[in-house]
Formats: sequence, structure tokens, C-alpha cells
Amino acid sequence: MATSGKVIRCRAAVAWAVGKELSVEEVEVAPPKAGEVRIKIVATGICHTDEHVLKGCFPNVEFPVILGHEGAGIVESVGEGVTSVKPGDKVIPLCLPQCGECSFCLNPESNYCLKCHLSEPQNLMPDKTTRFTCKGKQIHHYMWVSTFAEYTVVPEYAVAKIDPAAPLDKVCLLGCGFSTGYGAAINTAKVKPGSTCAIFGLGGVGLSVVMGCKAAGASRIIAVDINKDKFAKAKQLGATDCINPRDCQKPIQEVLTEMTGQGVDYSFEAVGLKETMIAALASCNMNTGICVMIGVPNSASEISLDPMILLTGRTWKGSVFGGWKSRDSMPKLVSSYLEKKFNSDLLITHTLPFAQVNEGFELLRAGKSIRSVLLF
Amino acid sequence: MATSGKVIRCRAAVAWAVGKELSVEEVEVAPPKAGEVRIKIVATGICHTDEHVLKGCFPNVEFPVILGHEGAGIVESVGEGVTSVKPGDKVIPLCLPQCGECSFCLNPESNYCLKCHLSEPQNLMPDKTTRFTCKGKQIHHYMWVSTFAEYTVVPEYAVAKIDPAAPLDKVCLLGCGFSTGYGAAINTAKVKPGSTCAIFGLGGVGLSVVMGCKAAGASRIIAVDINKDKFAKAKQLGATDCINPRDCQKPIQEVLTEMTGQGVDYSFEAVGLKETMIAALASCNMNTGICVMIGVPNSASEISLDPMILLTGRTWKGSVFGGWKSRDSMPKLVSSYLEKKFNSDLLITHTLPFAQVNEGFELLRAGKSIRSVLLF
Repeated sequence: MATSGKVIRCRAAVAWAVGKELSVEEVEVAPPKAGEVRIKIVATGICHTDEHVLKGCFPNVEFPVILGHEGAGIVESVGEGVTSVKPGDKVIPLCLPQCGECSFCLNPESNYCLKCHLSEPQNLMPDKTTRFTCKGKQIHHYMWVSTFAEYTVVPEYAVAKIDPAAPLDKVCLLGCGFSTGYGAAINTAKVKPGSTCAIFGLGGVGLSVVMGCKAAGASRIIAVDINKDKFAKAKQLGATDCINPRDCQKPIQEVLTEMTGQGVDYSFEAVGLKETMIAALASCNMNTGICVMIGVPNSASEISLDPMILLTGRTWKGSVFGGWKSRDSMPKLVSSYLEKKFNSDLLITHTLPFAQVNEGFELLRAGKSIRSVLLF
Repeated sequence: MATSGKVIRCRAAVAWAVGKELSVEEVEVAPPKAGEVRIKIVATGICHTDEHVLKGCFPNVEFPVILGHEGAGIVESVGEGVTSVKPGDKVIPLCLPQCGECSFCLNPESNYCLKCHLSEPQNLMPDKTTRFTCKGKQIHHYMWVSTFAEYTVVPEYAVAKIDPAAPLDKVCLLGCGFSTGYGAAINTAKVKPGSTCAIFGLGGVGLSVVMGCKAAGASRIIAVDINKDKFAKAKQLGATDCINPRDCQKPIQEVLTEMTGQGVDYSFEAVGLKETMIAALASCNMNTGICVMIGVPNSASEISLDPMILLTGRTWKGSVFGGWKSRDSMPKLVSSYLEKKFNSDLLITHTLPFAQVNEGFELLRAGKSIRSVLLF
């Protein structure tokens, strides 16, 4: 049943080196090998993590590389043995795979997979070769998905088939930002009705946390950011209060504790800085508070704290991809989108042709966009 | 109904200064004021926290002071307005109070009380005076319970009436060590049947965690200590494996991860050192693992970690008094003891007359005792 064929020549944004602008180039995309899927990417969001990689925050990512990890597309061809998708299927590539065989995948309470990039490098395909070349040079994959290319190749366990009715230029956000934030509230924190929440960082992930808290029935949702331009969107999505720590005379954790009596029930860190991690932890109730860490810190960050902050009973936990088992959950998340159980479209502030990828990054850096979606 | 009467002259172990041996002295114990209870202490355990105070680890404890916080006794008299206990009642003084009125006490999910020593100093009674004098000097209270005295005075919200059938020389352990460790497994971690657990530190608290894990149905209970003399008791209480990190060629977290595939489901730190806190955290499963911090660190300890250790999904949380609401739970814990649902007697390695209090501390320092119980 393998439909793999020839090398495809198409456009992709190549990151040649740390700190340089992306370069839209013609690349060659090899056919999928056994267990692989070649996807025509239709739309892709730009996530802060892509920007962090470009800035060199993650030295384990090898250059040159094709970034992008929040895409949606249509299967073009499949390699030998692939059974879960076929050419023509609408799909979302998964930046957290679900191999279905490792001890984590077999554990119903875990959403991690040992094939995740945190356990195994994903600069090359699982067979340690690349499917991308450009000007005679081998180009690395990124998180096995590399959605900043018109065609990309991913392992079968890193792609999920979705409802053919799904608008790909919208549901691409479910590939990373929306699912990560929304799930952190729903699955990781398990926010309860009537509770109080604080969200640090109002990018695509943080605003999705706001949506998750709202959906879970939180009665007070306090949005925190140093960019007040984000506040209107946060309120639209469900925030009851918005605070700029730079406008406060006291540390933000003291402000939040005073606002809520004993601190919030749930706090979320969607920035990735140690200062906001500690502030978020200290903002939640000293005995029953739950602080969820979502923001990815720079490599080799060290965070220092007085253990008494936890000893009184606080819970501090991390969340990967919102606690969703990726392949199992993605079709359901897309169905929920189609049933209008949430409106992730509100996160999309800009839609640009793919050629304007660098403009999309500029909007992100300037704090002017939540999500820019690039269309091929 | 107040039965308060005269000053009582009796024996107590006074800690005159940091680093000095306790001195058994004749002290005067004033009658209970309104809302207070005077208790004839019958038995008291010696907990590591008393030793830490003596060594000066907690500079907010004021000297001279009468230590001891794991006692049991009989109400001698009560001050005005006291209704929950009366003279002759068997009671356990509570090192974590339950005022019943603060926002934490009113929250069914919290076991903290704003009158706890972590929120409010307990060097003096709530009215900021002491009931103890010795040789004309005022002596401080400790955690409002000061059980190293034949008679002590405590606020009504820091004492629980228990079953008159309870043997006070045994159930005194429920006043701190046993309840703290057992509850950390049952209430805080909520250990599930068939799970794997690791316990760092095999003192009275750590061994009570072992008992809690066993009671919860854990299938593998790995006990960790640098003193192998603790291993026989740990095995008697339910440990399936015992490891001395000093016998290992690799860091203990790597040893435990290899033993269990992906790390334990639950790890517990009952030492109070930053090294064991980090080792315990790293020993649990990177996605679903739960690490419970129980050991009280020295004041002003700072712990440093790479946030990635949490970001992959681990949960790190503290536990105060095993998650029990103290006044509500103590009568039930004593009933469970009488029904033989657990056997905390196995923690008692030595029983000594009160005059030998310093011998009890020597046994503790030498790692020869789990719990010494002092009898008046």
C-alpha cells in the first residue's frame, strides 16, 4: 500500500544558523521511508519556541534546520507499513509523539512518550538520516515535524488523522499552543468550578490557559503580563482581572495573595523564566495551591528556592503538551473545535502568506501578535 | 466550669541555650487562662525536630524553652470558656493546631491552620505571655505544646480528646512522627495499590511512610538510608528493598530509576537536606511521578534545580502533619490504632524515665533509636 514516490522540490524556511533570519529556499524532500508519512503542509502557526530555537536557547537543536511545529496538512504519500493514515487524509503532525509501545504510552495516566525530543534527539528521522536537502546540504528536522516546509516527512507515530471537515488554517493551532495551554488547565491542574486562577504570560499558550480555566468554571481568572496590549484579548477569552507587574508597588506574588486572601488556587507559568516560575509558585495558596509550569526554560537554567515554599503543602508540577496523549487526543480535540466547545480562532491575530515568515517572527518579537498563521 | 487553680510545681527539661544539654529542673506552671488547657503529660516521644532546635537550626525558636511536641496526657484543668475537653480526659496536644475559624480550617481540602507556628510564632501563648517559669526566669513555650514538662498549658484549639482506652505511652507517637509519615503516604501522595515507592530517611517519620505505603497496597517499597542499622526495622514494617546510597557506584536517583524502569511512582523525603530533596525528586517517574517533601530543612536553606526536572510532568509537593486536619483526625487515628489498623508501637525502640531525657537524645544522635518514649 506504500505510495511513496519521488523527491519533491518545494519551498521551506531554512534556519541556516543561530541568530540569522529564516531564508525561504527551494528544498528537496525525499519520499517517506518505512513507517513514515509525507505531508503537504497547508498552514502553520509560529510559536515562541521556534523563536527561542532561533535565538540559540536550545543548543541541542542542530543547524541548519527547518523549524515549525504547529502545522496542519494533507497526507501526500506514506511509507511501507503505514496503516493509520493514507494519502488525502487531513492530519496534524505531533510535536509530542505517541509510539503506543513504550512504558509511558502503555500507562493510561501518562501522556509522555519515550520518543519525545526530551528523551531522544529529533534532529534526524528515527533512522538517523534526514529527508531534507537544500543546495546540496543536508538540513535537519525539528521535533520530527518541521512544519515550515510545504512538504515534510514525519514518523507515523507523530501524526494524527483528523476530521475531513476541519479548517486546516485554524486547527493548526491545536498542534501546539492551544492544546498545551488549554490542557494544562483541564488535565494537569484539573481546575475546579468556582476556583481562582492566575496565569503568568499571555502568549498563545497563556491565553489558552485562560480559555481552559474559563471552560473549567473558574470564578476568578487573573491574567499577568508586562505587555498591557495583551489584556484586551485576555478579557475577551475569560480573564476577570489583568495585572502588569511593572505597575505594582509590591512583588506580584504579594499583590495576588492580597487580592485573593491566601493566594490563588491554581497558578500557571507560561513564560519560561525563573523569576516568573518562583512568582507563580509563591502566588498560589501555601497549603492547597497548585502551580503548573508550562513555559520551557533556556537550557541549563537553574532555579533557586527556599524549600519551605513547598513544605507547607503547595504542589508544583510540570505539564507537557497539556497532558494530552497526542495521537489519541488530537482527533477528539478537533471534533471539540468543530462542535464549538472552544474557539481557538480567537488566538489568531494575523494570517500571512508563507513567504512572509520573517514578518511573522517580527510581529511575535514586537509583542504585536498572539498567533500568526502562515499559509502555503 | 473553669477548673483552673493554682500554680503547679513540677519537673521539666529546660533548654537554656543552643547547643547545651537539656537540664531537668523544677518549674512553675501557671494555671490555664481563658481558652487554655493544662495537661498532665504522661508520655512523650523525642523527635528529630527537637534535636534540630537544640542545635540551633531554627533561629526563630527563642531560648530558654521547654521543647517536646509528641506527647499524650490527661487534662488537669481548663480555663474559662473551654468546652471540648474537661479534667480527666485523655488528650494529645497538637503541634499543628486547628482553630476551626481561619480560611484554611474552613476549607475542607486544607489541613493547615493560620495559627500554625509557620504563620505565627508559638514561643509564647496566644496572649503573648508564658505559663512557665524556672528559677525566677520566664521560659518559652515550643509549638504551644512543650511536652517535656510534667504539666503543660496549651490553647484549646491545640489539643484533641481521645478514647479513654488509649495507652498514652504508645499513642503519644500519633502526636507527630507517626501521623506525619503515615499521612504523607495516605493523604498527600495518595499512594495507589500496586505502585512503587521510595522513602529517603528511615527515622520515625520515614518508617511511618513505609507503613503508610504498605497500608495503601504499594507493591514495591524501597527504603533508603545511610545507616544500615535501620534496614531490619524497615523490612519489618513493609520495605521490600533497602539501599544505602554509600554502597552505590552511581547516584541513588540513577540506581532507583534503573531498579524500576522509569523511576518510582512516589518518592518521599524525610530527612530535610537539599541533596536528598533533589535525589528524591529525580527518583520518581519523569512524567507521572509524585515526590512528597516532609523533612523540615534548616532555616534559610536554598535549593537549586534545573526546572526541566519538573517540566516533563513530575509533581513536587509538601506535606504538613501528614495532611490530617489535626483536631478532627486525632480521635480517629487513635481509634484506628485501637482497632489495630496499624501498629505504631513497632517504632518505639526505647522507653526511658523522664529523668533520662538526655540519654534519649544521645540514642537519637547515635542513630540507635527510632523513637524513645519518656515516661513521667
